Amino acid sequence: MDTDDELRWETTDSAVDYTCPGFDVRRDEVTLPDGTETDYHYVDEPHAVVVLPFTPDGDVVVIEEWRQAVGRVNRGLPAGSVEADDADFAAAARRELREETGYEADTVSHLFSAEPTNGIANSVHHHFVAQGCTPTAETDLDFNESIRVETVDYDAILAAALDSAEPRSASNRTQSDDGGLRDGRAMLALTQYELRHGVDPEP
Amino acid sequence: MDTDDELRWETTDSAVDYTCPGFDVRRDEVTLPDGTETDYHYVDEPHAVVVLPFTPDGDVVVIEEWRQAVGRVNRGLPAGSVEADDADFAAAARRELREETGYEADTVSHLFSAEPTNGIANSVHHHFVAQGCTPTAETDLDFNESIRVETVDYDAILAAALDSAEPRSASNRTQSDDGGLRDGRAMLALTQYELRHGVDPEP
Repeated sequence: MDTDDELRWETTDSAVDYTCPGFDVRRDEVTLPDGTETDYHYVDEPHAVVVLPFTPDGDVVVIEEWRQAVGRVNRGLPAGSVEADDADFAAAARRELREETGYEADTVSHLFSAEPTNGIANSVHHHFVAQGCTPTAETDLDFNESIRVETVDYDAILAAALDSAEPRSASNRTQSDDGGLRDGRAMLALTQYELRHGVDPEP
Repeated sequence: MDTDDELRWETTDSAVDYTCPGFDVRRDEVTLPDGTETDYHYVDEPHAVVVLPFTPDGDVVVIEEWRQAVGRVNRGLPAGSVEADDADFAAAARRELREETGYEADTVSHLFSAEPTNGIANSVHHHFVAQGCTPTAETDLDFNESIRVETVDYDAILAAALDSAEPRSASNRTQSDDGGLRDGRAMLALTQYELRHGVDPEP
């Protein structure tokens, strides 16, 4: 039918093989293009939103929180899974911004969507830009969330996203080891925003 | 000791809770800053390399392969886990480039490293730029890898990385639905490269 047919796998069965509070692991039974029958396991989780929030002055609202998977405090952007009560992805973005930072936005607009690790997970991150963000609400955190909220200069956080330092071993690293960001979601949001909208008006 | 202490979790135990061919799931027992004892589950996988390969003419070598987790053919960059035999990350980048595309590089250099999903996984992607890539070797694929190799214009693939189309439902999408990239690793590699090195020499 199209040229993708030579690469396509057929799925003959699919079931959740493992579940934990953050995600499931799904096991599919598949037939490869050459007829081989095998299985494939991947992380199954809801779609998520990532928010790049600007204050009226053009600063960026960032968060710092403990990330157990990498054993350090992570500087990043408000983000979280879409929930059943969210009317749409934009509503989820407004909710996550409010819950994690206490800021509310004048406007939110879709910037892009990406699959961060589609080799092992069905995760999809929908990135939004929030403009006119001001601290108007109380944060509303999950029981195991401890978050520090800061506003930072846009050019400084973009420079941090372009800092190429290689992560050290997990045992001795904290975000304060260096100025660079390591959070891929935040790095992608900032570089995408800069290439789409970040043209310096006064060269 | 430092201001991260107010956010830090203490890990009191850690064990693999589930294993499958692509990754493990690890369960840590932790104590939160307020003294609460709980557990946290996350994907445990080896570090990986991502390669942005340029031909001598400045075109980009891309691959298309089936991604079962998202149910479609994905256009992206050569990438894979670091293996025990790799001398370092640069060697892993050369190996993945050769195995997945049959191209070999004159030079490879580290561009940046990122944690794509550090809320649920300890994954670290080390991104490399490979220059002077030419088709000199046979591909060497895993039994369940079917890969199509193409060379594309740099400006065209960068434009695809900046295409903001929202992914449709998993059931009816293929890469050929639109021109945009959805692979977050490739999108991040291209936007990072453009902001660091992509200045147009002839404005």
